[in-house]
Amino acid sequence: MASESKVESNAQSNGKGSIAFHGMSCPLPLQDYPNVILGHGGGGKLSSELVEHIFLPAFDNSHLAGLGDSTVFDVGQGRMAFTTDSYVVQPLFFPGGSIGDLAVNGTVNDLAMSGAKPVYLSAGFIIEEGFPIGQLKQIADDMGAAARAADVSIITGDTKVVERGHGDGCYINTAGVGIVPNEVNISPDKARPGDVVMVSGTIGDHGMAIMSVREGLEFEAQIESDSAPLNQMVADIIKACPEVRVLRDPTRGGLAASLNEIAVASGYGIVIEEPSLPINPTVESACEILGFDPLLVANEGKLVCIVPGKSADDVLSAMKSNPFGANAAVIGNVVAEHPKMVIAKTMIGASRVITLPIGEQLPRIC
Amino acid sequence: MASESKVESNAQSNGKGSIAFHGMSCPLPLQDYPNVILGHGGGGKLSSELVEHIFLPAFDNSHLAGLGDSTVFDVGQGRMAFTTDSYVVQPLFFPGGSIGDLAVNGTVNDLAMSGAKPVYLSAGFIIEEGFPIGQLKQIADDMGAAARAADVSIITGDTKVVERGHGDGCYINTAGVGIVPNEVNISPDKARPGDVVMVSGTIGDHGMAIMSVREGLEFEAQIESDSAPLNQMVADIIKACPEVRVLRDPTRGGLAASLNEIAVASGYGIVIEEPSLPINPTVESACEILGFDPLLVANEGKLVCIVPGKSADDVLSAMKSNPFGANAAVIGNVVAEHPKMVIAKTMIGASRVITLPIGEQLPRIC
Repeated sequence: MASESKVESNAQSNGKGSIAFHGMSCPLPLQDYPNVILGHGGGGKLSSELVEHIFLPAFDNSHLAGLGDSTVFDVGQGRMAFTTDSYVVQPLFFPGGSIGDLAVNGTVNDLAMSGAKPVYLSAGFIIEEGFPIGQLKQIADDMGAAARAADVSIITGDTKVVERGHGDGCYINTAGVGIVPNEVNISPDKARPGDVVMVSGTIGDHGMAIMSVREGLEFEAQIESDSAPLNQMVADIIKACPEVRVLRDPTRGGLAASLNEIAVASGYGIVIEEPSLPINPTVESACEILGFDPLLVANEGKLVCIVPGKSADDVLSAMKSNPFGANAAVIGNVVAEHPKMVIAKTMIGASRVITLPIGEQLPRIC
Repeated sequence: MASESKVESNAQSNGKGSIAFHGMSCPLPLQDYPNVILGHGGGGKLSSELVEHIFLPAFDNSHLAGLGDSTVFDVGQGRMAFTTDSYVVQPLFFPGGSIGDLAVNGTVNDLAMSGAKPVYLSAGFIIEEGFPIGQLKQIADDMGAAARAADVSIITGDTKVVERGHGDGCYINTAGVGIVPNEVNISPDKARPGDVVMVSGTIGDHGMAIMSVREGLEFEAQIESDSAPLNQMVADIIKACPEVRVLRDPTRGGLAASLNEIAVASGYGIVIEEPSLPINPTVESACEILGFDPLLVANEGKLVCIVPGKSADDVLSAMKSNPFGANAAVIGNVVAEHPKMVIAKTMIGASRVITLPIGEQLPRIC
């Protein structure tokens, strides 16, 4: 890559094979990576370091410091949420969905997790020269259908084309804006001991769907992505429990990453009962065969919900009455013990620490 | 590409080497392109066809139909503008700027052209495995500096990493939201006969800066990109002339594309006096040597402004008092003759039609 030579003049070498960043001290392992590795995009520790050490210092502002999936800001009379996500999933079409509905549902869900009602999306395409127009139309149609299903509109867009060999078919970025009801105040730091932790359905479906099609694996039943819009479910949850504490969609990094974020942000511990985790049996078998931990596998149509104990039954009913929440389940509790740590109790009564994944278990998942 | 085979099953062949789209009749030349070509990203006719025939039908909504660079929508008490752009410029660093400040200025300018005050940006990165962290930091720092200069904040972001060979160093998407003052109503269809057409400075600087560094060309003076935020200039213009009709930033496709868009949207003709066009002499020489028409070359820190004739002097003064408007000039008029066409009067008194470029004069320009 022609750019390799440039970094040597831009960054001072500290003589130990790593680089020193101007104007900041950076004691964390990022220094050990002079170049980006796949794990920097994996939603785990390496991703966090990239954000903390490269982007936060550069873009310095109080909104960004929240590090949520979307950012809420005041505008005139109301509050709005704003989010962005790029989609680089490979293959572009997979059982249960395509990059098109993923690009809409993913951004709709990021807005919904801050309690916002998603309203408008943008769509930015980076297309490789030679990409079949028929596939582009299929992707655009999938986006349109997903937007109608989620009751949002794609109102602005942009298309760039790069030369053959400099992209990978089609990348999509969507940004989204939503309106946050005044009474809503949902964020990962709101979890409190005694709160109940729930998921809205089976975990690991999206990641294993991608994995099985990418590796050409066949199981008894086809594993389908769970790609779905969760904004209506969020509205139902808020109606059942206006004081809902936390909502997260466990995408890259899976449930493990979301629960760790919540534990760290709130300063409390989380205990989950592993036998309570809803998992599709085919997904469970596939994970066992391939050596994946379902807690680390991406979901694209599931949410984690933390609510005060007294509201748990109402919220569970609300989730179960939604078409995407039939398998919703209580999976654990927020506790005062082991602050900032997530512990899973296994079927045989043992405990294991669930850590934030370091890098990338499965690249190009969304 | 593995996806080539897929289009054949997704799209019906009409037996003439082109594809038929399901559920739409498509009599335009898009049918002749079964695959995306570079020109589909060039901001010219091919880009328009892609938007009209693929994206507009799929995303169907009244906001999008305006086809502006950003979209204005009502939210509670106020009006907001929303826009997105992906940046794939090559090389990433060039005289006068980098992909970083381009990604901020470009989106700031798209918002400003609808009369909005840009407020918040998102940033989505698609980074190739192996990209030097030092360069990523330089890009992020450039974005931060550009955001501060334009008085906007980057408040949400996302990072994806793709495998080596499936990207090109670093692609950036920024989306932006801005607040539109109630009295402002600026759009390309507002041009009227008798209005005056102005540009805010020399044209073609950005495109020729990229071209010269990419081709290793050396001229007497180095050509620098004009990448700059234009939101303050727009505020000054609106102050000098609240009834300003049209603002556009002539990026991909150059001044020719912007003027043609305005002519088509308004239904009137535009005449420009070619000798009045401000052009940096080095850029003019470079264009002559390389066979480029400066009217078609991209700008990243210039605007076209159309105002009622009586306000022309005030607006010209306002532009000239801005640091990025020193070379602002009146270049022509809106006329009732030759509707929807742009005519240039040359130095020797001849007239030539300025058409919308078909495809890509210079790919990867922004």
